[in-house]
Amino acid sequence: MVEHEIKVVIHKCDLAIKQEDFDTLMTYYTDDAILVVKPTKIARSKVEIKNAFIAIAKYFNHSIVPTQGEMLILEAGDTALVISQTFLEAEKEENDYAMDRKATYAFKRNSHGTWLCAIDNSYGTELIK
Amino acid sequence: MVEHEIKVVIHKCDLAIKQEDFDTLMTYYTDDAILVVKPTKIARSKVEIKNAFIAIAKYFNHSIVPTQGEMLILEAGDTALVISQTFLEAEKEENDYAMDRKATYAFKRNSHGTWLCAIDNSYGTELIK
Repeated sequence: MVEHEIKVVIHKCDLAIKQEDFDTLMTYYTDDAILVVKPTKIARSKVEIKNAFIAIAKYFNHSIVPTQGEMLILEAGDTALVISQTFLEAEKEENDYAMDRKATYAFKRNSHGTWLCAIDNSYGTELIK
Repeated sequence: MVEHEIKVVIHKCDLAIKQEDFDTLMTYYTDDAILVVKPTKIARSKVEIKNAFIAIAKYFNHSIVPTQGEMLILEAGDTALVISQTFLEAEKEENDYAMDRKATYAFKRNSHGTWLCAIDNSYGTELIK
């Protein structure tokens, strides 16, 4: 079975985050992408998103391992909405940290046919009450 | 305060659904839009989406009143992810019916600057376990 290209991209992003290869990571985002860093903070543009990932890696003592569980891709033309069970394992002050969220990602396909992440919201619908 | 254009569009959609003006409703969708009718059924294209709304209206005895509560619009260039508390009131077999969901909608801005709905998923992240 051939995996959806978006699923492949998300797996590559998870690997790049684990390896702290943020230049490679940024190639999977649109130029005007946004990242919900936390419910009250949004990073806008690749520069801000890269800096956010650098800060997150530091905060978790360079131990982050993100993975995806069940994933659903709703595709409509050159726009896609991804709903994904996202896991984050890390160490924080000598304690193990584990997070499990239902994330929402919006992707768009560019003129070369490549899917890129436009909106990276790991908080899913938890951003509203 | 000026409301975000997408919020205005969603309010117009709610009104069109209530009035069963499905031709007007379809003007707010992209040509290749999709609607998650239920977790196991997706309507693709305006024709299928219109037919789905006609069937839903009939199922609820032409009594549907959709409204939105708290709404968050995450905008990145010509793509937007909307997270919205969606209410649906209706009558079904002489009983009142009420639904409350955290919906996710993907919008895109076309070359005329108009925001249109590409992915209409009232089930939000509940589509995955």
